[in-house]
Amino acid sequence: MPEASPQATPHAMRGVLAPVITPFQSDLSIDIGRLTAHCEWLIAQDCGLAIFGTNSEGNSLSVAEKIDTMDALVAAGLPPERMMPGTGACALPDAVALARHAARLGCGGVLALPPFYYKAVSDDGIFAFFDRLIEGVGEAALRIYLYHIPPVAQVGFSQALIARLIAAHPEVVVGIKDSSGDLSHCRGLLERFPGFSVFPGNEMFLRETMALGATGTISAIANVNPAGIDAVYRGWDGADGEALQARANAIRAIFARHNTISAMKAAMAAARQDPGWRRVRPPLEALGAEAEAELLAALAEAGFSID
Amino acid sequence: MPEASPQATPHAMRGVLAPVITPFQSDLSIDIGRLTAHCEWLIAQDCGLAIFGTNSEGNSLSVAEKIDTMDALVAAGLPPERMMPGTGACALPDAVALARHAARLGCGGVLALPPFYYKAVSDDGIFAFFDRLIEGVGEAALRIYLYHIPPVAQVGFSQALIARLIAAHPEVVVGIKDSSGDLSHCRGLLERFPGFSVFPGNEMFLRETMALGATGTISAIANVNPAGIDAVYRGWDGADGEALQARANAIRAIFARHNTISAMKAAMAAARQDPGWRRVRPPLEALGAEAEAELLAALAEAGFSID
Repeated sequence: MPEASPQATPHAMRGVLAPVITPFQSDLSIDIGRLTAHCEWLIAQDCGLAIFGTNSEGNSLSVAEKIDTMDALVAAGLPPERMMPGTGACALPDAVALARHAARLGCGGVLALPPFYYKAVSDDGIFAFFDRLIEGVGEAALRIYLYHIPPVAQVGFSQALIARLIAAHPEVVVGIKDSSGDLSHCRGLLERFPGFSVFPGNEMFLRETMALGATGTISAIANVNPAGIDAVYRGWDGADGEALQARANAIRAIFARHNTISAMKAAMAAARQDPGWRRVRPPLEALGAEAEAELLAALAEAGFSID
Repeated sequence: MPEASPQATPHAMRGVLAPVITPFQSDLSIDIGRLTAHCEWLIAQDCGLAIFGTNSEGNSLSVAEKIDTMDALVAAGLPPERMMPGTGACALPDAVALARHAARLGCGGVLALPPFYYKAVSDDGIFAFFDRLIEGVGEAALRIYLYHIPPVAQVGFSQALIARLIAAHPEVVVGIKDSSGDLSHCRGLLERFPGFSVFPGNEMFLRETMALGATGTISAIANVNPAGIDAVYRGWDGADGEALQARANAIRAIFARHNTISAMKAAMAAARQDPGWRRVRPPLEALGAEAEAELLAALAEAGFSID
């Protein structure tokens, strides 16, 4: 039963967004230069910037690092209205500080994980967290996209909780990234919450979900295949829709044989002839030489390259 | 097969420690006054201070709040050598900042969660995290107690990983809190790593684990029953050992009918005639009135009071 009438999503927050992978220097500090160049390349292909997502190793970055990075990217001329930084945190003061900073910078939205340390918490508890978060931020410009990723965070958003959050904050809680990986779950959200921006967390079912009213997709693989995924977003209902989807899915499958983050970084290292792109922060690990060779061979065989 | 020869645990880090519950003011900021008084009460009963643990809502506090709180408690005269602050974090820079601050303050040890956002990470990845953590802290005084709590963190320490960490850093990685809740897991650690400080994460099997060489226990319920649990620690092999254990377990069982954190805070609120003790940070919730009445009635019926 449709029930929500949330704020309409502006154009800048539609389409394909990448949870931007984060390059590191040799001391594992964030490499702002490489990151800026990668963001510019994504924007040039009309791919929005979901910095500090799971694939960005966002929870491996400190609050101060995230604030400094937002500032640096905007100072470099990247458009804040195309940014949806991950601002979720286990600690409410951290979530407030990050979301407030993003809102004040003019970011188009924030992608907000629920607090994820305690497990089996109640909807009431998560609701109270977001209620205090929104009050704590205190910025009318704040737009929150809920980040539902139970395979990793373990804590997620039930439909009942989403309905409560929209009812209480219709101008702030405007969308969701659904990384359940479950098409039927995504369909349920699209049917129950028309007008709410639903971004499936990967592009595998983009044709089906666009037909049901999805706003786009926030997909890891958009870091390396932004044009291919954007083609599905724009052409899903055209004559080539099925072929475009199949092609995107084939590329995705090659990366998905490995840890996706490390695999995308290895592919970037090869494409940019820049071995520094391989670095990840522990507990993640770079791809081994054998896996990297397998990955690059499979991409070449598929005729795929990062341009 | 015994293999480790870690640093011996000093007297100050033996016995019973409480993951100190954190009182909040009405705006949910940390109430340093109430916290100091609670820590003084615990120390007076020879209970060590595992501040910022799971039961402390440690992951609901920001890095800055934890640093300020450590400073305030030491400034108030509490003994740092009896403190084992939780310093684990998903982001390596946060873990380094917290552990370094604790080591420089003279804390007897730190209780270190593995990075817990990414799931199914490898032992190599967690090893690399701790290797960089220890290098980043750069303090000879650092003593790490691994915090194994898979029911909450989902990420834990395998025996193979523990052996590698001890071998690489025998003077730093000196112990573990085992909150697996599994006596056989705890027994396995005690048998394989003699000399390594093993603290079962609750007091339920304290007699059995003391007989096997446990260093003590770090138990939530020590916040409200420090004397009762200390009596088991000191008297486990005496004539009253079985009765002392049964008494402690009966008290524990009453709290365990509820969310333990909220229940302990409700009991503190009643004992100190201070309703402010009830506050928790979301996503946790205070006990409802009915549950609180049930709890207090059960404690009274058991003849238990917080003195």
